[in-house]
Amino acid sequence: MAESTPTLLVVSAHAGDFVWRAGGAIAAATMRGERAVVVCLSYGERGESASQWLQGKPLDEIKAIRRAEAEDAAAALGAEVEFLDLGDYPLIEAPEAIQKLVDVYRRAQPTVVLTHPLSDPYNGDHAAAARMALQARVLAQAIGVANSDGSFPTKDEIIGAPPVFFFEPHQPEQSDFKPNVLLDVTAAFPLKRKAMECLPAQKHMWEYYTQLAIRRGVQVKRNAGPNLGLPHETLGEAYMRYYPQVTDVLE
Amino acid sequence: MAESTPTLLVVSAHAGDFVWRAGGAIAAATMRGERAVVVCLSYGERGESASQWLQGKPLDEIKAIRRAEAEDAAAALGAEVEFLDLGDYPLIEAPEAIQKLVDVYRRAQPTVVLTHPLSDPYNGDHAAAARMALQARVLAQAIGVANSDGSFPTKDEIIGAPPVFFFEPHQPEQSDFKPNVLLDVTAAFPLKRKAMECLPAQKHMWEYYTQLAIRRGVQVKRNAGPNLGLPHETLGEAYMRYYPQVTDVLE
Amino acid sequence: MAESTPTLLVVSAHAGDFVWRAGGAIAAATMRGERAVVVCLSYGERGESASQWLQGKPLDEIKAIRRAEAEDAAAALGAEVEFLDLGDYPLIEAPEAIQKLVDVYRRAQPTVVLTHPLSDPYNGDHAAAARMALQARVLAQAIGVANSDGSFPTKDEIIGAPPVFFFEPHQPEQSDFKPNVLLDVTAAFPLKRKAMECLPAQKHMWEYYTQLAIRRGVQVKRNAGPNLGLPHETLGEAYMRYYPQVTDVLE
Amino acid sequence: MAESTPTLLVVSAHAGDFVWRAGGAIAAATMRGERAVVVCLSYGERGESASQWLQGKPLDEIKAIRRAEAEDAAAALGAEVEFLDLGDYPLIEAPEAIQKLVDVYRRAQPTVVLTHPLSDPYNGDHAAAARMALQARVLAQAIGVANSDGSFPTKDEIIGAPPVFFFEPHQPEQSDFKPNVLLDVTAAFPLKRKAMECLPAQKHMWEYYTQLAIRRGVQVKRNAGPNLGLPHETLGEAYMRYYPQVTDVLE
Amino acid sequence: MAESTPTLLVVSAHAGDFVWRAGGAIAAATMRGERAVVVCLSYGERGESASQWLQGKPLDEIKAIRRAEAEDAAAALGAEVEFLDLGDYPLIEAPEAIQKLVDVYRRAQPTVVLTHPLSDPYNGDHAAAARMALQARVLAQAIGVANSDGSFPTKDEIIGAPPVFFFEPHQPEQSDFKPNVLLDVTAAFPLKRKAMECLPAQKHMWEYYTQLAIRRGVQVKRNAGPNLGLPHETLGEAYMRYYPQVTDVLE
Amino acid sequence: MAESTPTLLVVSAHAGDFVWRAGGAIAAATMRGERAVVVCLSYGERGESASQWLQGKPLDEIKAIRRAEAEDAAAALGAEVEFLDLGDYPLIEAPEAIQKLVDVYRRAQPTVVLTHPLSDPYNGDHAAAARMALQARVLAQAIGVANSDGSFPTKDEIIGAPPVFFFEPHQPEQSDFKPNVLLDVTAAFPLKRKAMECLPAQKHMWEYYTQLAIRRGVQVKRNAGPNLGLPHETLGEAYMRYYPQVTDVLE
Repeated sequence: MAESTPTLLVVSAHAGDFVWRAGGAIAAATMRGERAVVVCLSYGERGESASQWLQGKPLDEIKAIRRAEAEDAAAALGAEVEFLDLGDYPLIEAPEAIQKLVDVYRRAQPTVVLTHPLSDPYNGDHAAAARMALQARVLAQAIGVANSDGSFPTKDEIIGAPPVFFFEPHQPEQSDFKPNVLLDVTAAFPLKRKAMECLPAQKHMWEYYTQLAIRRGVQVKRNAGPNLGLPHETLGEAYMRYYPQVTDVLE
Repeated sequence: MAESTPTLLVVSAHAGDFVWRAGGAIAAATMRGERAVVVCLSYGERGESASQWLQGKPLDEIKAIRRAEAEDAAAALGAEVEFLDLGDYPLIEAPEAIQKLVDVYRRAQPTVVLTHPLSDPYNGDHAAAARMALQARVLAQAIGVANSDGSFPTKDEIIGAPPVFFFEPHQPEQSDFKPNVLLDVTAAFPLKRKAMECLPAQKHMWEYYTQLAIRRGVQVKRNAGPNLGLPHETLGEAYMRYYPQVTDVLE
Repeated sequence: MAESTPTLLVVSAHAGDFVWRAGGAIAAATMRGERAVVVCLSYGERGESASQWLQGKPLDEIKAIRRAEAEDAAAALGAEVEFLDLGDYPLIEAPEAIQKLVDVYRRAQPTVVLTHPLSDPYNGDHAAAARMALQARVLAQAIGVANSDGSFPTKDEIIGAPPVFFFEPHQPEQSDFKPNVLLDVTAAFPLKRKAMECLPAQKHMWEYYTQLAIRRGVQVKRNAGPNLGLPHETLGEAYMRYYPQVTDVLE
Repeated sequence: MAESTPTLLVVSAHAGDFVWRAGGAIAAATMRGERAVVVCLSYGERGESASQWLQGKPLDEIKAIRRAEAEDAAAALGAEVEFLDLGDYPLIEAPEAIQKLVDVYRRAQPTVVLTHPLSDPYNGDHAAAARMALQARVLAQAIGVANSDGSFPTKDEIIGAPPVFFFEPHQPEQSDFKPNVLLDVTAAFPLKRKAMECLPAQKHMWEYYTQLAIRRGVQVKRNAGPNLGLPHETLGEAYMRYYPQVTDVLE
Repeated sequence: MAESTPTLLVVSAHAGDFVWRAGGAIAAATMRGERAVVVCLSYGERGESASQWLQGKPLDEIKAIRRAEAEDAAAALGAEVEFLDLGDYPLIEAPEAIQKLVDVYRRAQPTVVLTHPLSDPYNGDHAAAARMALQARVLAQAIGVANSDGSFPTKDEIIGAPPVFFFEPHQPEQSDFKPNVLLDVTAAFPLKRKAMECLPAQKHMWEYYTQLAIRRGVQVKRNAGPNLGLPHETLGEAYMRYYPQVTDVLE
Repeated sequence: MAESTPTLLVVSAHAGDFVWRAGGAIAAATMRGERAVVVCLSYGERGESASQWLQGKPLDEIKAIRRAEAEDAAAALGAEVEFLDLGDYPLIEAPEAIQKLVDVYRRAQPTVVLTHPLSDPYNGDHAAAARMALQARVLAQAIGVANSDGSFPTKDEIIGAPPVFFFEPHQPEQSDFKPNVLLDVTAAFPLKRKAMECLPAQKHMWEYYTQLAIRRGVQVKRNAGPNLGLPHETLGEAYMRYYPQVTDVLE
């Protein structure tokens, strides 16, 4: 893969988040021939695996199940995936964890970053993941920041200033999520659906997130105007751009 | 000019606003071969012509001076300009004025709209212009809204949903102006400078707005990252996108 | 109807708004034996009747069609409806219109008021309706404010301080709509669906708003907790309370 | 006490906070026969015991004094009280402390939670308490989260989704405290006054908080309207609801 | 009175507002030998004179009563007062009214301006007064803006850029009133109390606003620190500065 | 130096921040004969020393270089400087670090405090420094909080409630920096320029921050009004006051 391939880095608090919230953007990127790297900070083993706990499964087995599902879903999206196994409920914001993320950033050299928004009253792990993703991105830009094992010089190049987009939380208004980017994922949606179906324990979510894609698609059309020639059923995902857009054309 | 030429519509409260605040975006558009239409709601004859009033000039002469300057500046930018002569200080938000703007929208068929932000504690005319620009845009989309003379059917087609960008006010923080788009105007800046020099009464502003372009240019580079290969002296203009961006690529 | 019957007053900018956005709350009230009064400030004849304009129908016929539909929908919900015919696109905020609403408030003696939220970047009429509804509510409380024809004493009693709830706009996040009340409308939804089906020109919206009810219902359950014994498929509507809730129990 | 008794859980940073800020709500609950459990994260031994330090008392004695006062005040309100002794000034937000609170939540099975608001520029402990109270509530809902000693299965049931209300800080506007619930505590106020009088070191506060109750009571009446038949002197407490209210009646 | 005497201009929606909300600042100014000019936009004849309407008094008599009371209160504060009689409930924001205020500004040449905050969900007149006060201030700065009768040159000099302070509304948090200036009015308070007692119809407010002064005084002390040597009972008024403070010392 | 000398305390995340952002305020204070104490939490050795790292210098040498530069710059401003050497990129918010700052506060007895604003999406260290500066200020007020080595009684007196001002970040709008104080630093600017020139590695910043001073100076004049007799070229610095201003004159 050439050095100049655009690369999408997705920082996900739990093993399933990247599928529901950013599956369309990931599939769209890989369908364009770009690279997509997903990093799951935890497996969601405590906070998002209620059905397995009810069945009395032990912690290690639950983690293995969640990991296998996430690997399948990433494969369906054409993405690489890695796991930092930092623990969840709570996912603790800690310097060591951030430093590991710095390594990931430098290794992946992302041109675009996706993560959770900074506020979620229903799930503190999501906000912790966002804070760590943002801090690591700034640290990874500095030549003076060492590798996570303390060694120097850094194994990989420092990074540039990739734009960051927050993906949609479960209750957007309560999480102060005001989308400023609506992404058309019509062509990519079949892959997202396929990835969702890799998560059988949450079967009721498949339809829920398909309907959300329809609703965001209506907004894509409404904001693009009638003249854009979009297909009748446009499917969308909503994002919040964190840093200002840099461009040479207003459009 | 073919029907499909992109068209930039700039709604300016006074005769000079479009030069200082959006001259780079206008010149960049016309340099790409696009059409740019500036509509000045007033000449700025009362509120922004202090030196002429001090010289005791009559109202009509002041208006003529400001109009001529604006025409020269628009020409320097490669833009068309028209004047609604609605009066300033105060520029009054009124249904008739909005209706005239509806005609302008439908005649121009803009693909992008620029105007003032909705808040400016130092100049109520700017906010009034923004409110009217936004209302007219929505009305111009409706097939049931008549021409400004009440006739039907409408002389021109209804419009789509062009994106709206607010340009930078004089005191950005006080006007709740948080830019989410930084426009690289390096190549277009010589034309902007030429247009500024068409406004001789405000000679001290030439350098002021050149310095602002440098400062916004630093932010262009800072937000784009070191890898983008931008020239050493990048010049910028700051904008606030009002509606969410519609796109099929996150970048 | 006894003086003490609770009365819901719904102030709707256009003839259809109350159905999509508040139909569940209205039906729930009338199913409890309460009175519901809908006042449509306009018929939505210009801004929300595109298909009729495309068919070349004259203005009066369009207004009559919209009125008949709204009457049918109100009947389906068990509500009274009246029309102020103030014109739309734009619906103009004017003292005379507000004064007419004062009469409505005093005649209806509402115990609860529903209207649009104060911000909607896609439709200025909605915000204008909200501003008028709020102003009229305050004026109707004052014994010194005359009837709309200038006569004294007032034909009806002044009103108390009924709570005001904003119903959901089409693009909630863009309209700064952060719900602080989630209403369970499971039992009332069949009547809402029936009312929606009184609006045949917008058939594609029937399913859209049914899906929205499902999504808001998920949030009802999520915010109520697993212990509340809600039915599997709970349906909801989202509201924003404008004034603080007054209560003698925190719950 | 039956399983279904409503239970109020109050998370208080220091030993006295629950009295001044939520005494009315607590007394109202116990007067209705409900259970109220107060958990004091610290005794306020360093930051809110200036007079004892000036008298040269040792730390342990100060803690004992504050504890005894809080026990008396809780008894006056009819509430249970426990102390986590986490230290104050600063009260440090830490995973272990949050985990202890998870145990409290599961043991108490609250139907309503009261705590500090998330912002207080004058006292960082208050915000830290709020953050811990909110995190513990979410963790206590997850079956996969262990007891604070790491054992499994959990000693008590997981909890539902009790509503959370922030009580009033000392300088409400500076703490971004915009009340959306005004609680009528007229009947409960004598017990609150009695509880306040259990805190003799802050005698000047008795009258201060009585006056605040009068002022909030005026707002209770103002927001309830003249028709509600409230007593002449209504006494109130102000709260901010954190999650949306779930209801089947708008009122 | 010398040209350079500092002058306080108070723009009050109704005849009584300046007393309750800014009486301390006014008295403090006149006690320093400065000039204070109060302009009442209306008498509050419809919205704030319920007891007179209940007694069946005619409009003109009510206006005369309110005017006399306001004149007495202004005299007690050492202030001049004038009345624009623009009508209340609603007080309508209109170009002609604003133009009259422009004359007042130029005649008074204020060095400081006080008015209502821009938001008040309980009283639209207050926000309308604030909007007009702010617009008139900007217009009065422009040499090209004529006298209110259209004549030129302007009878009085244009004004500078006096700072604007919003005084406290009845329900501060609901009106987004976050004070950033706490004014010590201890010495001036006896005059404020005397002015309040000129308004006999609202006797219950005398004590209410005395208690508010005590509460704001506690905040004066809390924000000034223990070292400032303030008297035991400090009395305060709260303000919001609208434009940034200009200073050559940070303190 | 007498006990009553006003003292400015500046809490700076890195060794250079106080120069660019607050050099004018510091010089103005020392020129008035006041004391100024700068505390640098780190040397900026990792995050703000890219050119030294590129030259392959070791960590200790980089720290020594930055320290020497900061000492020179402080001397140019007439200020004392000390270094806590807490490390940067990331600067970690920790109880021990805060406790050391408590000692600094009590030793310095500041009458005014300057630090970074609470938000900076480009540099997490700045926000961490602000949070620690604010927490330490509150802790230093409490007689019950020990010295940082745990000993009692405290070596120095507790402090009062000095006002806190945030100085300007590099990208103000992105950092939610809305200045409410504009400081005239015209007379002090030559010293600030001299201090900037003590930082040779960032020579391109000298002109950048000189231009910023001009721009803020324009705002000083614009907000002060034409009558204030300010010099033609006024130079300024922008600040955000965190706590409300306490005053006995509105001006």
